[in-house]
Amino acid sequence: MTAAQDDPALLAPGRAGSAASSATSDHAYLRALLDAEAALTRAQAALGLAPAGAATAVTEAAGTGAFDVRALAERARAGGNPVIPLVADLTKAVGAEYGPYVHRGATSQDIMDTATMLVAVRTLGLVLDDLGRTERALAVLAAEHRDTAMPGRTLTQHAVPTTFGLKAAGWRSLVLDARDRVTAVRDALPVQLGGAAGTLAAFGAYGAPDPTELPWAYARELGLRAPDLPWHTLRTPVADLAGCLAFTAGALGKAAVDVLTLSRTEIAEVVEGSGGGSSAMPHKSNPVRSTLIASAARRAPQLAATLYGALAAEDERPAGAWHAEWEPLRDLLRLVGGAARDAAELAEGLRVRPEVMREHLDLTGGLIVSERLSAELAPVLGRARAKELLSGPACEGRPLSDVPELADADLDPTHYTGSAGALTDRALERR
Amino acid sequence: MTAAQDDPALLAPGRAGSAASSATSDHAYLRALLDAEAALTRAQAALGLAPAGAATAVTEAAGTGAFDVRALAERARAGGNPVIPLVADLTKAVGAEYGPYVHRGATSQDIMDTATMLVAVRTLGLVLDDLGRTERALAVLAAEHRDTAMPGRTLTQHAVPTTFGLKAAGWRSLVLDARDRVTAVRDALPVQLGGAAGTLAAFGAYGAPDPTELPWAYARELGLRAPDLPWHTLRTPVADLAGCLAFTAGALGKAAVDVLTLSRTEIAEVVEGSGGGSSAMPHKSNPVRSTLIASAARRAPQLAATLYGALAAEDERPAGAWHAEWEPLRDLLRLVGGAARDAAELAEGLRVRPEVMREHLDLTGGLIVSERLSAELAPVLGRARAKELLSGPACEGRPLSDVPELADADLDPTHYTGSAGALTDRALERR
Amino acid sequence: MTAAQDDPALLAPGRAGSAASSATSDHAYLRALLDAEAALTRAQAALGLAPAGAATAVTEAAGTGAFDVRALAERARAGGNPVIPLVADLTKAVGAEYGPYVHRGATSQDIMDTATMLVAVRTLGLVLDDLGRTERALAVLAAEHRDTAMPGRTLTQHAVPTTFGLKAAGWRSLVLDARDRVTAVRDALPVQLGGAAGTLAAFGAYGAPDPTELPWAYARELGLRAPDLPWHTLRTPVADLAGCLAFTAGALGKAAVDVLTLSRTEIAEVVEGSGGGSSAMPHKSNPVRSTLIASAARRAPQLAATLYGALAAEDERPAGAWHAEWEPLRDLLRLVGGAARDAAELAEGLRVRPEVMREHLDLTGGLIVSERLSAELAPVLGRARAKELLSGPACEGRPLSDVPELADADLDPTHYTGSAGALTDRALERR
Amino acid sequence: MTAAQDDPALLAPGRAGSAASSATSDHAYLRALLDAEAALTRAQAALGLAPAGAATAVTEAAGTGAFDVRALAERARAGGNPVIPLVADLTKAVGAEYGPYVHRGATSQDIMDTATMLVAVRTLGLVLDDLGRTERALAVLAAEHRDTAMPGRTLTQHAVPTTFGLKAAGWRSLVLDARDRVTAVRDALPVQLGGAAGTLAAFGAYGAPDPTELPWAYARELGLRAPDLPWHTLRTPVADLAGCLAFTAGALGKAAVDVLTLSRTEIAEVVEGSGGGSSAMPHKSNPVRSTLIASAARRAPQLAATLYGALAAEDERPAGAWHAEWEPLRDLLRLVGGAARDAAELAEGLRVRPEVMREHLDLTGGLIVSERLSAELAPVLGRARAKELLSGPACEGRPLSDVPELADADLDPTHYTGSAGALTDRALERR
Repeated sequence: MTAAQDDPALLAPGRAGSAASSATSDHAYLRALLDAEAALTRAQAALGLAPAGAATAVTEAAGTGAFDVRALAERARAGGNPVIPLVADLTKAVGAEYGPYVHRGATSQDIMDTATMLVAVRTLGLVLDDLGRTERALAVLAAEHRDTAMPGRTLTQHAVPTTFGLKAAGWRSLVLDARDRVTAVRDALPVQLGGAAGTLAAFGAYGAPDPTELPWAYARELGLRAPDLPWHTLRTPVADLAGCLAFTAGALGKAAVDVLTLSRTEIAEVVEGSGGGSSAMPHKSNPVRSTLIASAARRAPQLAATLYGALAAEDERPAGAWHAEWEPLRDLLRLVGGAARDAAELAEGLRVRPEVMREHLDLTGGLIVSERLSAELAPVLGRARAKELLSGPACEGRPLSDVPELADADLDPTHYTGSAGALTDRALERR
Repeated sequence: MTAAQDDPALLAPGRAGSAASSATSDHAYLRALLDAEAALTRAQAALGLAPAGAATAVTEAAGTGAFDVRALAERARAGGNPVIPLVADLTKAVGAEYGPYVHRGATSQDIMDTATMLVAVRTLGLVLDDLGRTERALAVLAAEHRDTAMPGRTLTQHAVPTTFGLKAAGWRSLVLDARDRVTAVRDALPVQLGGAAGTLAAFGAYGAPDPTELPWAYARELGLRAPDLPWHTLRTPVADLAGCLAFTAGALGKAAVDVLTLSRTEIAEVVEGSGGGSSAMPHKSNPVRSTLIASAARRAPQLAATLYGALAAEDERPAGAWHAEWEPLRDLLRLVGGAARDAAELAEGLRVRPEVMREHLDLTGGLIVSERLSAELAPVLGRARAKELLSGPACEGRPLSDVPELADADLDPTHYTGSAGALTDRALERR
Repeated sequence: MTAAQDDPALLAPGRAGSAASSATSDHAYLRALLDAEAALTRAQAALGLAPAGAATAVTEAAGTGAFDVRALAERARAGGNPVIPLVADLTKAVGAEYGPYVHRGATSQDIMDTATMLVAVRTLGLVLDDLGRTERALAVLAAEHRDTAMPGRTLTQHAVPTTFGLKAAGWRSLVLDARDRVTAVRDALPVQLGGAAGTLAAFGAYGAPDPTELPWAYARELGLRAPDLPWHTLRTPVADLAGCLAFTAGALGKAAVDVLTLSRTEIAEVVEGSGGGSSAMPHKSNPVRSTLIASAARRAPQLAATLYGALAAEDERPAGAWHAEWEPLRDLLRLVGGAARDAAELAEGLRVRPEVMREHLDLTGGLIVSERLSAELAPVLGRARAKELLSGPACEGRPLSDVPELADADLDPTHYTGSAGALTDRALERR
Repeated sequence: MTAAQDDPALLAPGRAGSAASSATSDHAYLRALLDAEAALTRAQAALGLAPAGAATAVTEAAGTGAFDVRALAERARAGGNPVIPLVADLTKAVGAEYGPYVHRGATSQDIMDTATMLVAVRTLGLVLDDLGRTERALAVLAAEHRDTAMPGRTLTQHAVPTTFGLKAAGWRSLVLDARDRVTAVRDALPVQLGGAAGTLAAFGAYGAPDPTELPWAYARELGLRAPDLPWHTLRTPVADLAGCLAFTAGALGKAAVDVLTLSRTEIAEVVEGSGGGSSAMPHKSNPVRSTLIASAARRAPQLAATLYGALAAEDERPAGAWHAEWEPLRDLLRLVGGAARDAAELAEGLRVRPEVMREHLDLTGGLIVSERLSAELAPVLGRARAKELLSGPACEGRPLSDVPELADADLDPTHYTGSAGALTDRALERR
């Protein structure tokens, strides 16, 4: 599959040129559909339900590049899915002798769903690679900045100090959560095989003594799982994909929105490794990787919602709910694939500026440790007087060090990072 | 623009091969980006801010097919949008003399947003054509079946009679509502022009005495509206597009889900003009047009949600919210464009079976007119006894005509269509 | 209706205690349901289809507080909507003589939809009041700060200067866009009246010579519009509400996210009038109004999506799509009502700090005017050398004023606000 | 907690009066907030960081009903969350001696998030109970109807036969998938404890030798899990709840839309145990339980989308994303709680009509077994002739038994249910 076969992705810089983009292209789906058809014939041959020659012939025909994806797409209009014309073309390509073994006993959805699972497995592998790169880079950052104090911010305001190490460890823990969820979902993705209404009846009509063996043989051919039941309208695998992909987009989005904030001209505590330029302003260095990840995180939840909404699918094959899954699932795979690539680049290239963080800790004139002072002063002065002392300067813009009662207090914000270091250490133990 | 330049749309039979698909392809966006750049130089020339030769040179260079959409897409990664590399290529293509007039004073978003509006106007024109076809075909159906009685159904159960004419008139009224909303939005779509932060400052730096004239000149070149303010982060046009497109998808979806219900094997009161086949069952004739429209109606709301969510865009250009608009807006335009084509075919081809409708009116043994009987009997027998009479047989499965008290009642359901005819007539007066 | 009748809104500080919260409480809906029932009887009396005494009796009974909203809610489970038990109770309350005129000819949805429109009209009036307050306060801010220069920011980075006046004028233009959309939708909201399947048949059964007069009489009683057709499954009014409410939430959200950014400890160019406290940190002054508006803007799009999704409603009354509208529409009305209140308080109380804005204009050492310098230098030095000059210092952290070629350049950022003033003036002309 | 303390739920018949409604009421949240505060003091006492008397005093004060939920809600406006005023009231209630131990070291979000987890655990227990009832009832139906043949339907058309047993087994498998996902998520829900910026620093200031012990002690008090890290902006637990709840709504929705279809007047293969009435039509028996479940399934995905969207939460506490979680998560818990109750009633009461299913198998004149005939005839007659035979009658409306070549074919649809029985058996082995 060459890049030239993908859509250009002019509106999608987050995924343009990515491996995930190739792995989810129309050509990749066509490849997966052909793989699914070939495996079906091989599975039947493996069970003695089709001649070995048929398995070879279908596999060979499916392996050629002789199928016209654009023509198939347009011919898909008639029946509403691309498998119908593909079966016609593949049967023809296989020839008279073995043609009857193409798609035998299956329904379009068997092939479409199985191909979708193949595409998902292949793309999730890429996603996991990039999540791995990301978490490793974040582990390095967290360890390196275990004790780099910086302002903790809540509701946009300086709250109390934290460390960049803890922040990076938090980002990493989300990446690991994503990795665990993606891995679990990927490893459970099943083939689809049920025939017209999910009863496997046609395989019996074609002579299978026990048609329930077919899905197992099929799964073996493709390295996917065999499902308990045909899942034409039991869409757990699709919903699980929706969930883990929306989660991953959001998990990466958390790091991205933090980097965006910390990159602001006035904050500048971190800088992306290679910022993006501008068509108008020669000096700009934009946090482009974070921007594109944040953009993906804004879109993924609604795509997942469409997939969750497709669970309520009537009958043995629904009129619309199934069709509504195809593009949103592909879009999710692509978006997350692209975001994972950007996250890896972001994490690997991020430049941290501890000295700027240190400066910012003083911006509130000591108020950033007011929680600590409050804890220490309240038992001595009483809560009311302590609060008065600590909120007074905040309103008046004076530094706390000017307050007589606080003359001996430890106002050094770097001494008030609590258990940030210990928490970071513990988080880094997770593999 | 040839079809070969679109993505194949293998997963999108609802739009494959459609004019809307071409009008929203990456190549169509590239064309619109180039149109936007050329118009910008012409607008400056029209105001005397650039030599006439520059306008000609940029327009000519932009008119060639010399731009590599795939390479632009990949180069867009660096800065996060495709305008940056496109300006470089266009400037080079224009040459040394007039190159400096390319993109002069503009920011990437000026071009990207303007191009998006051009794509939207062009696609909405196609949508409106197909909505026109649809409403005309529905008007014919409504008039023809003004008095064709059929069961009215609520919560899946027969309620009281209605007419197919009223149903078709209702579908048409939604199509007209969609047409009105799409037309209003389309006619208000503006160019974008503000420069780096929306102040038009660069145009002044390049010598414009009154830079606020620029957007007007720009709008004239492109046949779009001039905005009151640069709208880089005032996204009313995008939100309005989201609203009218989600509405249109749902409006067409209403007719589609009705056809799906009425097409069921057990109901079969309507049949799609050309049903779709099956890869497994030779006899199947599926309501494919309705299925694909219903599928679009399931996806559009969530795409619109992403666009509404992008309204809350920080600063003078947001880091993510803007980028998150591009693909969902294109997807909405495409989905609705495809659904409108399918709706036109559906409406033009729909076969109505009045005799089946008539048979179904008798399925409840007269209970379908129980509301009427209730109205007539209650004053005579009292509400309680009337209700008892009318709900009794429902539970026992006897026809109402067996109930002695109802011996003289008019149980003919076709006599109980109320004002369906008058309502249909009135609805058809709307143009 | 007293506040004690609302839900407490413990999880909803954005709307707790607001007029919009009261206007959308269960009790307010009950009130509207009763108003709708009473108006229906009056409308029939007005057309001579019911005795005047019935109109009086039903109106009086409906006006009492004798209905138990909690019991009605639980009894609604049986039939799936609260109108069924309410009709029983109201009929009983009216008594034997006029009881039969309660709900006569109507279906539950007629009353439920009409009541919903009443609630919407009432709540939108409150919303419009607060949008009015907001836009007036923003107009004052925009006029006052017409020439207050501040950094324009794109992708989180300083770009070129803008003014706070232009920013406030932009916020106001969105509020006016919201006002216009809400007003248009509100003024078009119709009564619902169609009877069991939308044919008005029962009114004929009860003796109306022309049942199509009923909706007009009904609309006159309630101050709503008469619809062209019963809209039980033609949900344009609900979709239009969804659109204008999602728009309003996002429009207010834009100002909120800007205030959040500008309020950051490091930026502090604006301060909310009365910031919120913290349970842990005595010094904190949080931008709470903006936070709550931003929170509403995050939720509204998905609620609107559910409503757009309900357009595809099968039959004459759908089994699920209609029921799925009730709470999301109410939530949208409440959320936007609360956000509009917060926006008015935010705009009226916002404190602007021009001196901080002025300081920030120097943060980039002159690079914030690099666009201007680029425009001026390129013709003299050539584009390449100009770009080199201007991007060099950016990387090296030197101020532009140190660059010999720029010794005579006007680096004052307040001189480079372009047409911000003129644009602000024009925007303020809009009423 | 009495029902009188819940909101009436007038617009929510799906959950009105349910245990899940009570478990998620404002009063239930207040209870959980108080439980969280009391446990926090107890945890500190357990570690020797507070006197035992403080633990007792806070627990006792928190156990009273002396807190005014409505007043708290309105006071929550100032700071944006209800914990701030609650801490004030609780401190006062505890009195001077132990008051200082209330909320000591914690931040509002610690209490709010922990309380939310308590509410979630309690509500999910109810959900699991009802999922258990549902799956048991479905298991009975599946076993009982293991061999009840019925039409399999795809794209609304009869496809090939299936069995009701397989359909019910499929519904059950989704319920079990939901149960497994809900259980896994519930069992992992953690307490929240991090202090102002997640560093646990205040606990150190108050004298804890190792503040990282606090979360463990806190978790022990509440029966929740101790998290690896404070998760103020690492929202995995909320996202996991979103996913499992959206899944459950959709899983139940599948059965609901099937029942809605099979309940249609023309189909009537199943009937809800106790159908709902109508305000206008005495004979109506509506599938209300299914309608309300379907309604929940339409709303849940968009609520989940809002929660997934909140993952990208900036800083140590975000300004909006966190606040946007509260109501949607509660809504999801309620919706799913109500839908699970309805599903249990639906499954336990569903009446199946095998004789109607049998009749419908003949509706297509034998075409429902065309797949089988195709399989048998193709080898004999060739594919083309077989297809011609089998699609011909479909178009002409003749029964297949009239076709001479099929005179000896087994056209009995009940003989063509494939492996439906075996699949049902296997599915029922899952516990």
